[in-house]
Amino acid sequence: MICEIISVGTELLLGEIANTDAQYISKGLAELGIFCYYHSVCGDNPARLNETLRIARGRADIIITTGGLGPTADDLTKETIAAAFGRKLYTDEAQLERLKIRMSGRPMTSNNLKQADLPEGCTVLENDWGTAPGCAIEWEEGKHLIMLPGPPSECRPMFDHRARPYLMALSDSVIYSTYIRIYGMGESAVEDKLSFLMNSLENPTAAPYAKDGECEVRVTARAKTEEEAKAMCAPVVEQIREILGDVIYGIDVGSIEEALSMVMKEKKLTVATAESCTAGLVAKRITDIAGASEYFNMGVVTYSNEAKMKLLGVSEETLKAHGAVSPETAAEMARGIRLLSGADIGISVTGIAGPGGGTPEKPVGLYYAGVSTAEGEEVISRSFRTTRQRIRHSAASAAIDLARRAAEKL
Amino acid sequence: MICEIISVGTELLLGEIANTDAQYISKGLAELGIFCYYHSVCGDNPARLNETLRIARGRADIIITTGGLGPTADDLTKETIAAAFGRKLYTDEAQLERLKIRMSGRPMTSNNLKQADLPEGCTVLENDWGTAPGCAIEWEEGKHLIMLPGPPSECRPMFDHRARPYLMALSDSVIYSTYIRIYGMGESAVEDKLSFLMNSLENPTAAPYAKDGECEVRVTARAKTEEEAKAMCAPVVEQIREILGDVIYGIDVGSIEEALSMVMKEKKLTVATAESCTAGLVAKRITDIAGASEYFNMGVVTYSNEAKMKLLGVSEETLKAHGAVSPETAAEMARGIRLLSGADIGISVTGIAGPGGGTPEKPVGLYYAGVSTAEGEEVISRSFRTTRQRIRHSAASAAIDLARRAAEKL
Repeated sequence: MICEIISVGTELLLGEIANTDAQYISKGLAELGIFCYYHSVCGDNPARLNETLRIARGRADIIITTGGLGPTADDLTKETIAAAFGRKLYTDEAQLERLKIRMSGRPMTSNNLKQADLPEGCTVLENDWGTAPGCAIEWEEGKHLIMLPGPPSECRPMFDHRARPYLMALSDSVIYSTYIRIYGMGESAVEDKLSFLMNSLENPTAAPYAKDGECEVRVTARAKTEEEAKAMCAPVVEQIREILGDVIYGIDVGSIEEALSMVMKEKKLTVATAESCTAGLVAKRITDIAGASEYFNMGVVTYSNEAKMKLLGVSEETLKAHGAVSPETAAEMARGIRLLSGADIGISVTGIAGPGGGTPEKPVGLYYAGVSTAEGEEVISRSFRTTRQRIRHSAASAAIDLARRAAEKL
Repeated sequence: MICEIISVGTELLLGEIANTDAQYISKGLAELGIFCYYHSVCGDNPARLNETLRIARGRADIIITTGGLGPTADDLTKETIAAAFGRKLYTDEAQLERLKIRMSGRPMTSNNLKQADLPEGCTVLENDWGTAPGCAIEWEEGKHLIMLPGPPSECRPMFDHRARPYLMALSDSVIYSTYIRIYGMGESAVEDKLSFLMNSLENPTAAPYAKDGECEVRVTARAKTEEEAKAMCAPVVEQIREILGDVIYGIDVGSIEEALSMVMKEKKLTVATAESCTAGLVAKRITDIAGASEYFNMGVVTYSNEAKMKLLGVSEETLKAHGAVSPETAAEMARGIRLLSGADIGISVTGIAGPGGGTPEKPVGLYYAGVSTAEGEEVISRSFRTTRQRIRHSAASAAIDLARRAAEKL
């Protein structure tokens, strides 16, 4: 099956937003084993949407549209598509009822009501995340068009919970993927270590991907049922676990901070942060996870040497002898925040995020991340020249991963 | 002039990255007054790129492609386009020389060398941000195709410094835009206040846009020269300044934190941060600006009540009587961090970022931001129900804007 994604919205053509809907759906299609050869974007303009539909019909089995289902005058996707495929719109009573309940209290204009109008003979895709329902039509045998709303907060769950099951029902097999998340080993090193295994696999398959300075291995199986596909993936995941060891921070978890959250809650531990070059990013990422207050109480940003001494008790001698960007300072910062906060684990970051401030001995991109527990301190260092933003992201990941590893051992 | 953007890259169709190149270029085209009716994405596949080119040629005067200019085997954009427009590739000696200098020390494979191959009769667009040059061809009179590299770190400056001047030279007038950045007043309120002025304008024009919880007004003039267009914008910007007053945090600045940076450096002031629900995001955003160490030394993340008392001296009575999310606590946090750090300005945030933790009196989305100077404390509050991430972003913006306003007055 070949799919084409058509995104409708003048805001895309004006550059006001990026087409993240197409990205999200494409990723989902790849997981389902459905090929996507083209994305198209057109404005809220019936003639140009018609032209785009005409082209897509000629080269795709599945068309997924995003956008243009809302209540305003420029939302014309449903009307245009219904006309293009010779279908009338009818008012769906069940959807009208849902709309009325959802809008309760607010005035219902005729524009709001039109969201319940749907093409005859369609499969309704109920929208639990917004007002406009989606729908799917089979325009000829084996050829399907699915309309999803445009706002990403609606498009994503509508794809996962409505379009995905619809697409899976079209196939007699199911694709299931599981993601092994890795920090601290690059894509090529992972590929190297797993090449023997990967080459021997046919179904399931395993493939590494680089992602935001991390790496993930996707293990994908195709089978009659999801259960069966899952069971096929499991032994491969175990093999990869054995080969890669503790650089794996989680299976099917969203991020290092989510993996940290799981182990901290399970072991009822607490962590505190002391940051220099990341300046709040470590604490921010830890608390991106709702419920972080269970294991995070306190952090400090000590950007200047004075702040490092005053808040964390880093010694003047250490700063003079080794400098603020040094393993010694990182260790004292981690220890200092652990003692100040009373947390089980203290973590620290100090480095040179640039673009200025580098020297030949301590270039831009050099950072130290430290961890302190009752058993002592540990510091790692890394150096790679890239943008200020990426250096800070990488340094924050290093510190959070140190906390995760320390927690695993406690 | 009507433009179409074609992005070439299988990674886009697999959902590995979003098409931010198309967004960036679209924004630039809108500023130039060039219409963009379609974006198309296809993979690194000559047949499908040919099909996409064929369609675009039939409906656009300008085609801009991104991607596929690099050294690897799947980079086929140049070869495919040259063939489609009946042009041979030649090795450009000047580009070959540049390549050799850029790669000095590293081994030059034949793949690397092919980056200097360009279509006959093209205008070379030198790439100062990467290895692969871009180019432009006039495929028939008044019809132009511009090839840009795919990595955003190359595509963006190549558009700004190469494609933009090329496009401007095609027109006998110049478009100049200036951006008035606003925090603390919504798009519709801004539109309301400016509607009389906006309606009276023809050239320049003024239009408000919502952007990441903020608002900006774009003032655009068309004239013979950029200087002339700039001069036409200036009095309109002044009028808008008079109407909107201090909700304007800057003209042509990138962000609130950049505006803060400018005033802090100019006035030689310092700021320190005390954060609860934003948990490091305020400090992180302040230090996103390189050189922030001139005016930022210290911040604390006091997530628990104990941390607020211990580090900032927030009184137990205040926390008991009013709770952690209260104007009283916000004021004591701001004052506490100012005294602890010795900075001129202390700022604070406390709120309920959700999804849990809300009550009828203090719902998810309620936050207080505080500022403290030698002259006293000030607290603002806001409440709007949205995602954890957006609530935290908004609260951080509020605190940074309070610091900016306080600095303006000191």
